Amino acid sequence: MSKLRVQSFGVSVDGFGAGVNSGLEHPLGVRGEELMQWFFPTQFWRTMQKQEGGETGVDNRVAQQGFENIGAWILGRNMFGPVRGPWPDESWKGWWGDNPPYHCPVFVLTHYERAPIEMKGGTVFHFVTDGIHSALEQAKSAARGKDVRVGGGASTVRQYLRERLIDELHVAISPVLLGEGEPLWRDIDMRALGYEVTETVMGERAMHEFLRKRA
Amino acid sequence: MSKLRVQSFGVSVDGFGAGVNSGLEHPLGVRGEELMQWFFPTQFWRTMQKQEGGETGVDNRVAQQGFENIGAWILGRNMFGPVRGPWPDESWKGWWGDNPPYHCPVFVLTHYERAPIEMKGGTVFHFVTDGIHSALEQAKSAARGKDVRVGGGASTVRQYLRERLIDELHVAISPVLLGEGEPLWRDIDMRALGYEVTETVMGERAMHEFLRKRA
Repeated sequence: MSKLRVQSFGVSVDGFGAGVNSGLEHPLGVRGEELMQWFFPTQFWRTMQKQEGGETGVDNRVAQQGFENIGAWILGRNMFGPVRGPWPDESWKGWWGDNPPYHCPVFVLTHYERAPIEMKGGTVFHFVTDGIHSALEQAKSAARGKDVRVGGGASTVRQYLRERLIDELHVAISPVLLGEGEPLWRDIDMRALGYEVTETVMGERAMHEFLRKRA
Repeated sequence: MSKLRVQSFGVSVDGFGAGVNSGLEHPLGVRGEELMQWFFPTQFWRTMQKQEGGETGVDNRVAQQGFENIGAWILGRNMFGPVRGPWPDESWKGWWGDNPPYHCPVFVLTHYERAPIEMKGGTVFHFVTDGIHSALEQAKSAARGKDVRVGGGASTVRQYLRERLIDELHVAISPVLLGEGEPLWRDIDMRALGYEVTETVMGERAMHEFLRKRA
């Protein structure tokens, strides 16, 4: 059974899933990259970036698990890029260069239509204008039995959580204070929505919490 | 220099510092005791409760540190007991029996005057009706050079944080979802208030974050 999963989602000690003012300079908002300080040093991520070395402990294993058995992704518009409003042209093709780390279909939530973009390495960006349910349906179909991963941002995760559509959610609580940003949990009652903690793993640079929707 | 410290303050994955409806049945609110599941099994706490055994690892060490060099405590009214409104009589003397675990002066914030209560073991409960600054002043004086610990609850911690009066804050992020309760960080910008993470310690049952106000 194909699942909808959130993986490696960084949350600050003070509960923020992203910083403020996300944009070209700060894809995850001001200081939002601090949420991923456990992720960037891993061998897994460095290898994806064609870099040598990296750490090989718990955080690395958890980072890698997040990419296993994923057949499609869903991203919020701001996770795809800094462009707001209508697409001015076709030039923006994501933060990740010619060969993005997805290597499968990626469904981008937006209010503005745009033709799909085929990238190197198997990533195809599709733009979905008719809402999160449609994006999920398309992604599940494209995943061909594998799982679908919601890549963020915080707003997209919150929308899917509220609809009880996420089956598994891995948050990495990072030892940073953001002070301001997007509160991941605000006005979301995780217990009423049916979620529970299934596993806790202490990493080198974050505490990993694995949450699951009860059957 | 005497400091104002918060220690061993449990916070859920979803950011709550207490459950809802705190009262006689649930001193920390519904399911609030889950925030302290890292604390109750420690040898330190069990010894205070005159119980044998207990765990002796990281969580135990951290729990113990929270009681070192403390000369006085400040508690919110609801941390002291379930009585709301005017004191109906003198019968309620705290949750802790004849010999509370404080063994020093404890200043209880309340809107209703009451005479001090001298308990066994050195604990004396004083009732402060003229606000958090007065309580701090009295506690610092009573502590005779040692530190003052704010014992909670969440509302009291938030009040002192907002006034930038807390020097050191140790939160234990516990692997539980409360779903509802008192959000510790809501509308508090910890960075703007001048706080930073100084140390992260992975315990057996919680992630310990040590925060400090920058000088």
